[in-house]
Amino acid sequence: MANKIQIGICGYGNLGKGVESEIAKHSDMELVAVFTRRKPVSSVKIKVDVPIVHIDDVMDWKEKIDVMILCGGSANDLPVQGPVFAKIFNTVDSFDTHAKVMDYLKTMDKSAKSSGNVSLISIGWDPGMFSLMRLYMSAILTNGNTHTFWGKGISQGHSDAIRGIVGVQKAIQYTIPVESAMQRIRNGENPALTTREKHTRLCYVVAEDSDKNRIEREIKEMPDYFSDYDTTVNFISHDEFMAEHTKMPHGGNVIHMGQTGFENNQSMEFVLKLDSNPEFTASVLLIYAKAAYRLSKMGESGAKTIFDVPPILLSENDRDEAIKSLL
Amino acid sequence: MANKIQIGICGYGNLGKGVESEIAKHSDMELVAVFTRRKPVSSVKIKVDVPIVHIDDVMDWKEKIDVMILCGGSANDLPVQGPVFAKIFNTVDSFDTHAKVMDYLKTMDKSAKSSGNVSLISIGWDPGMFSLMRLYMSAILTNGNTHTFWGKGISQGHSDAIRGIVGVQKAIQYTIPVESAMQRIRNGENPALTTREKHTRLCYVVAEDSDKNRIEREIKEMPDYFSDYDTTVNFISHDEFMAEHTKMPHGGNVIHMGQTGFENNQSMEFVLKLDSNPEFTASVLLIYAKAAYRLSKMGESGAKTIFDVPPILLSENDRDEAIKSLL
Repeated sequence: MANKIQIGICGYGNLGKGVESEIAKHSDMELVAVFTRRKPVSSVKIKVDVPIVHIDDVMDWKEKIDVMILCGGSANDLPVQGPVFAKIFNTVDSFDTHAKVMDYLKTMDKSAKSSGNVSLISIGWDPGMFSLMRLYMSAILTNGNTHTFWGKGISQGHSDAIRGIVGVQKAIQYTIPVESAMQRIRNGENPALTTREKHTRLCYVVAEDSDKNRIEREIKEMPDYFSDYDTTVNFISHDEFMAEHTKMPHGGNVIHMGQTGFENNQSMEFVLKLDSNPEFTASVLLIYAKAAYRLSKMGESGAKTIFDVPPILLSENDRDEAIKSLL
Repeated sequence: MANKIQIGICGYGNLGKGVESEIAKHSDMELVAVFTRRKPVSSVKIKVDVPIVHIDDVMDWKEKIDVMILCGGSANDLPVQGPVFAKIFNTVDSFDTHAKVMDYLKTMDKSAKSSGNVSLISIGWDPGMFSLMRLYMSAILTNGNTHTFWGKGISQGHSDAIRGIVGVQKAIQYTIPVESAMQRIRNGENPALTTREKHTRLCYVVAEDSDKNRIEREIKEMPDYFSDYDTTVNFISHDEFMAEHTKMPHGGNVIHMGQTGFENNQSMEFVLKLDSNPEFTASVLLIYAKAAYRLSKMGESGAKTIFDVPPILLSENDRDEAIKSLL
């Protein structure tokens, strides 16, 4: 391809590394630089041969990057970086603080419009592909109910909460969907289930023997995080922890049951089973970076969500070819 | 709602009846007339209180209908009706002759553009929602393979083929996906499977005892339709046939397995389980009728596919509300 879409990565945690790993699968995109807040930047070791640049020098790259993929966190990074970067580049991010998404959208829209850029926000799998499924499913069967289940997957927030307990050396928490609850929905029962009735919590902890009883009690009684859930705590050795629990699996199910005509049950379900949450999220970010570039070339500007993007803009093929091979 | 989208139905078979049944679930749409080729039109009995109009008089309704939902068949009806109706109305149809879809798209595009209308073609679940899933999934994980399974569901073509055998009084054929093949794909084996390795054929036939051996042999040896498939023929009574086999269930699975990073398996799956194929297809046609109307109001024209339509245009809510409740 003559002119590859020039991609920048801002933030080099798990997600940034995922984008770095997956961009090679797209022949129409090319990584040109990784931006970091760390000083000195030489402390950042990346796999591919592109410059590592301090975030303060980002303006030097204004003309060299078509889309900047913002890989920072929603709590502290994106609310600050997003509006600044949207004035300089087309951007894609995975902003996932649901309660603040409308404010973030408005702020990003103002920044992006001020300089004619496109910013796609809240891209990934949830928010992201799961949001899309909720929209499609609830639109098709308006009288149905949509249920989202998460897992089996790691909750960083819950893992961190366990790590905060005195005596915990290592800890990880998996959120597990309750299979019987999914089955009731698939059977058309349409039960009213809260998030906590739909999920259990499975914890793996490394600790000294003398601490175990207290730690288990503190976990299970922790308000908000664990006390209202069916929680299992397994104590394992350091070696087992390192061998079995250092991957980042995740996934989930979006299930929608509705009825048509005379009591005809109609069910839709979307299932993700992911060995690597950040690499999958990165894969979604990359195709929406392509869409941001294409929207920008079409003369669009402003902040948009996954709901606003015509699916064809994600395809690696041109429209005729996509219609022939996929429709 | 002040101004409901005015909907016409052209063709009153199973699909047209499905649209008639499901439109009541959309508070922003209203059925205004049903168009038929039958003469006299008074022979058509519809459930709701709207005019039944002969198709020859359709021009009288040009100003009264916002979107015409074309419910005819792909073999004979749509290639003739589509281009004529696209000059008069915004249209939605479920054209599903895959080999001819590019020609149909071009013909419809010319007709629709000539009068500033929008025509959405090949809408339903396959082609339709399954096409969308194939596009999203293959775009996200470019190194993966997408497999489509159909069923359990009725194949009209195969049912008709059985009914053509001498002595068959009633017959129905269900296409059944092979669960073990689906499981191999979910496990990441990525087997090369043909459509016939992925499906079996289950037939229910009503016939006289003296004919059964010959009929079973003729079915199982029928080239193209059955001879290369694992085919089961069950003879049942007329009463059992009427009690158990007059519904129109269908469904299927789109499964995509790909890898990211260092051998991380990532799997996506979309599952439909439908008690009524035509009512579900009608439900999809209705939300794309809404999208056709909205695209037309936005000044768009021409023929488009499900790939071209931004998801937000399907939502019953406005954009802010959809973002708040579904993202």
